[in-house]
Amino acid sequence: MDVTVIAGGVGAARLLRGVQDIIPADQLTAIVNVADDCEIHGLWISPDLDTVTYTCAEAIDTDRGWGLGDESWQAMATLRRYTDSGVRSDLSWFNLGDRDLGTHLYRTSRRNEGAPLSVITQEITLAWGIEFAVIPATDDPIATKLMSSGNQLDFQEYFVRDQHSVAVESVEFVGAAAARPAPGVIDAINRAGVIVIAPSNPVVSIGPILAIPGIREALRERRSHVVAISGIIGGAALKGPADRLLAELGHRSTAAGVAELYADIAATMIIDEADRGLAAEITELGMTPIVTDTIMVDRSAAARLGTVCLSSSDHAR
Amino acid sequence: MDVTVIAGGVGAARLLRGVQDIIPADQLTAIVNVADDCEIHGLWISPDLDTVTYTCAEAIDTDRGWGLGDESWQAMATLRRYTDSGVRSDLSWFNLGDRDLGTHLYRTSRRNEGAPLSVITQEITLAWGIEFAVIPATDDPIATKLMSSGNQLDFQEYFVRDQHSVAVESVEFVGAAAARPAPGVIDAINRAGVIVIAPSNPVVSIGPILAIPGIREALRERRSHVVAISGIIGGAALKGPADRLLAELGHRSTAAGVAELYADIAATMIIDEADRGLAAEITELGMTPIVTDTIMVDRSAAARLGTVCLSSSDHAR
Repeated sequence: MDVTVIAGGVGAARLLRGVQDIIPADQLTAIVNVADDCEIHGLWISPDLDTVTYTCAEAIDTDRGWGLGDESWQAMATLRRYTDSGVRSDLSWFNLGDRDLGTHLYRTSRRNEGAPLSVITQEITLAWGIEFAVIPATDDPIATKLMSSGNQLDFQEYFVRDQHSVAVESVEFVGAAAARPAPGVIDAINRAGVIVIAPSNPVVSIGPILAIPGIREALRERRSHVVAISGIIGGAALKGPADRLLAELGHRSTAAGVAELYADIAATMIIDEADRGLAAEITELGMTPIVTDTIMVDRSAAARLGTVCLSSSDHAR
Repeated sequence: MDVTVIAGGVGAARLLRGVQDIIPADQLTAIVNVADDCEIHGLWISPDLDTVTYTCAEAIDTDRGWGLGDESWQAMATLRRYTDSGVRSDLSWFNLGDRDLGTHLYRTSRRNEGAPLSVITQEITLAWGIEFAVIPATDDPIATKLMSSGNQLDFQEYFVRDQHSVAVESVEFVGAAAARPAPGVIDAINRAGVIVIAPSNPVVSIGPILAIPGIREALRERRSHVVAISGIIGGAALKGPADRLLAELGHRSTAAGVAELYADIAATMIIDEADRGLAAEITELGMTPIVTDTIMVDRSAAARLGTVCLSSSDHAR
């Protein structure tokens, strides 16, 4: 049975790391958010794609949660020599490790040659020995912008520079309306026996994927095969600003609040044991709740959660 | 007395390293070739500017002759993971050290913000503690292209990828005719008591500077104050392809051949003791030959050569 995972960064990467152990590579596809992508110092960075790749290749830095392990920071040390000299002080908040830089150099080279991101991503994942399909949601430019105190912030300004500590009034996915799903995206949704919406940030990780015309519609058509996993547990995000963003944008920052955002596209909602009390609310939304342990402490825990997802299509019918 | 040095990469950098010890910083200006500049992996590289900066800051890798000392190569190792995987094999011939990458990230960021190269260069040299003025010959794009066996090569393809081992039929400086001298260039020539043409490659390092409209003319006006140093000693270049290029392009690959290229703009020609026999030829070209030890084995040898340059204006009158 083909399995397709709608993916953001960390939460999705941890799920995929385990799911790749229980699904043959040629039956597994990840459709990954690219609205966090940015150009910094002339280099094209795709944070979520790299987090998925590095995590599934067991190459990610597990302490930091992003970038490569065994990393060094020589390039940043030189960059700081310039930015610390007083001429420019606002260039060095986005850290790029030396090993990681090789990925961005490659992506940028290939992009400047005209290769689509989906092709470049295939090349990069292959080089890391990843055999399942990792597809950017779109090859077209799409960028999350957040309004905070009346100022428009790029996603990385909000997320990295400001450490997501500022209040957000609204979120916009610039370019989304004109973006087309990358080759293979709609097909992966249509042919999958189970489509999993990973426990990623529903607003800024899954949100931009669903904003690309055709993707939400395709999921809605396959609703009985779609299972979403809440990344909110006990009212809080394990990592990142999902809980705060949900509240600021007028949603409930609970697993039920997440379920509400997916009710039209997912028949099944997986929530954590800690949120067992919310199961009735989820049923009221017209979704089948599955209560299980959703914290992926290791690779096998992620595989177990994947197995629960696979069984979900039974629940949904 | 103000001193201005017309500079390429290695030879000029070695000279400037010594000259900075004998000339107050506010009286010294280097006008540096930028026709070797290139965009690689999205990053803007200025090889000659960096060689001058790193050398004068005693930060260059002396064994390699380019880039920074104490260098690591993590980014290149990752890049090779991609290029070795068979998809692309032609991206990794241009090596960029991790420490060095910080310079290119900064230059690229500032350039993408619209800062002219002359301003960026000032910022970079300042951060390395260099107090004399380092000015790119122009802020406009200019690029050396070489024809070899009927194929047009970018300078770095010729110099780095092909290790300057291919025959060259012609050299062109694309963009030179439309380029304007960077702010301060013409003034530095006009006000200097001595203008030194460094012992850089006369064809591809000094040649592109002289091809920018206004610069050769300004030097011609100041001819009696201009002293050129031959980078060809005993018919051979100390480093690089100057001797071979001179011969391939129909010049003599001797100090006299170099003198001939500068006869209209330099009244004085410094040649090595090894070329004492060529002094008469240089006199015949209407130049005053100075014979001295031109091999800059260390910083003090470079300072001594600088002192000879300073005394040259006496010889010229």
